[in-house]
Amino acid sequence: MRGELMPINYPLVPGHEVVGEVVEVGSEVNKFKLGDKVGVGCLISSCGKCLSCNSNNEQYCNQRVFTYGAVNKDGTPTHGGFSSAMVVHQKFVVQIPEKLAPEQAAPLLCAGVTAYSPLKQFNNSDKAIKAGILGLGGVGHLAVLIAKAMGHHVTVISSSEKKKVEALEHLQADAFLVSSNAAEMEGAAASLDYILDTVPAFHSLEPYISLLKAGGKLIFVGVSTKPLHFNNDELILGNKSLTGSFIGSMEETQELLDFWAEKGLSTMIEVVKMDYINKAFERLERNDVRYRFVLEVAGSNLE
Amino acid sequence: MRGELMPINYPLVPGHEVVGEVVEVGSEVNKFKLGDKVGVGCLISSCGKCLSCNSNNEQYCNQRVFTYGAVNKDGTPTHGGFSSAMVVHQKFVVQIPEKLAPEQAAPLLCAGVTAYSPLKQFNNSDKAIKAGILGLGGVGHLAVLIAKAMGHHVTVISSSEKKKVEALEHLQADAFLVSSNAAEMEGAAASLDYILDTVPAFHSLEPYISLLKAGGKLIFVGVSTKPLHFNNDELILGNKSLTGSFIGSMEETQELLDFWAEKGLSTMIEVVKMDYINKAFERLERNDVRYRFVLEVAGSNLE
Repeated sequence: MRGELMPINYPLVPGHEVVGEVVEVGSEVNKFKLGDKVGVGCLISSCGKCLSCNSNNEQYCNQRVFTYGAVNKDGTPTHGGFSSAMVVHQKFVVQIPEKLAPEQAAPLLCAGVTAYSPLKQFNNSDKAIKAGILGLGGVGHLAVLIAKAMGHHVTVISSSEKKKVEALEHLQADAFLVSSNAAEMEGAAASLDYILDTVPAFHSLEPYISLLKAGGKLIFVGVSTKPLHFNNDELILGNKSLTGSFIGSMEETQELLDFWAEKGLSTMIEVVKMDYINKAFERLERNDVRYRFVLEVAGSNLE
Repeated sequence: MRGELMPINYPLVPGHEVVGEVVEVGSEVNKFKLGDKVGVGCLISSCGKCLSCNSNNEQYCNQRVFTYGAVNKDGTPTHGGFSSAMVVHQKFVVQIPEKLAPEQAAPLLCAGVTAYSPLKQFNNSDKAIKAGILGLGGVGHLAVLIAKAMGHHVTVISSSEKKKVEALEHLQADAFLVSSNAAEMEGAAASLDYILDTVPAFHSLEPYISLLKAGGKLIFVGVSTKPLHFNNDELILGNKSLTGSFIGSMEETQELLDFWAEKGLSTMIEVVKMDYINKAFERLERNDVRYRFVLEVAGSNLE
């Protein structure tokens, strides 16, 4: 339920982070068979020929096609998973591991891989990694779980104390920083290897750049509606980077599902049926969900 | 002759990028002997204990001591190389290779390593690297030579046609882009793996971010006096980075000198004596030097 980067063309059937069962396969399908539990994320197509596609980073292909609200290569509109069935090329489908409940897997297909893709460069590091997760929402809570499972020391950074118990007790983060507390922020200066910045709005970057060690990275996954500012001497004198990451590749999505199952992790979700959808959107607008609604289409009356 | 990042405390003796001969060694010096041709760059000390020092990146130590205009650990002011002799710890001294003329080596000790340090990550890459060098001054011209010697395809990006012949014929760059020419810029969109941005002033970043491939890096080595702006969706959707790099480590400085000698490269310099120094500074302010003045202290009358 994230639309900022998605094109919107009406009429459309929304729904990405789709989990279902294979009910039919084409004659050249070799990755899946009838009855497989499978998932579809944000994308259902890309050009297949560019540098990004050739390096298995099809999410950066400039001809990528979004799961809904976009236009297929044949000119027809793409429709998402709020439906009883959908047709997708096997390249853009992942296998849900046996051990994972379908509703657990769903949020990993966009929100989860959005956190996993930029964090995997720090996995299996030969040094102890100190991570910051800025913002504790749909992507942020999964990022905390993933970073912890990678063995990182995780600091959640938030604008108020409100989510402190949540972060430290429920998500088992190692530390919590209130960004408006100057003394706390000063005490944590130059301590983090990376910060995953999930804030989808304009914000000042200087406080977060200051938290980075020399060589540290501030990684954007949330789109600001206005230009962001920085003083480039802060990057130069500390060899620091501002970088961005967009969802993840299909390969990384499969990796994350396998990692999640292997580590025995749980997403925090609220499963709702179709007749609750308007209420769910209202609650989303108030940030009143912990942390992701999963819509149970199969159990809903779709007539 | 670069001062933006250097502290300035008067009275001072300026001069970094110092080349000379060892005339005396302390009892514990093991890297050098009398008569060695040696060099000193921007730094003469650091804490020796922090993460940056421990990883041989002492240029990012926050207790680094600049060659001139700064304060030694013992409280005395640091004085640079516009003098008949200077005392430096061996850690901050490099060996000038036999094959290199002293005046050739000088500009490598700050300007050269400023380009080399961020570029070496692209050296010996297993893919063909397409480089951009933004700005053709003291650092930019050395960056073109270094990137070419690393085998990169090098595009010089400049605000006007003025330096086109210089870039293509004298420095043997592969391509030249005028940043104000929208059609040329559009034609080169998404083509570069990195851009070394040597511009020491405010400038719009969007045109240069657009030139980067997915995964590309815009690397700042020139300090802007005003905050720079960017739209973070351009970083997110292209997995692009804005990053900064400051001079280089002593290890990298030695590497560059050896690389320069091995590749048989030449700096473009104008050697002047001490009595020309005021004139040299006047010409520097008009950008009237191709590309670096080297001051011959030994041949000057210092009385």
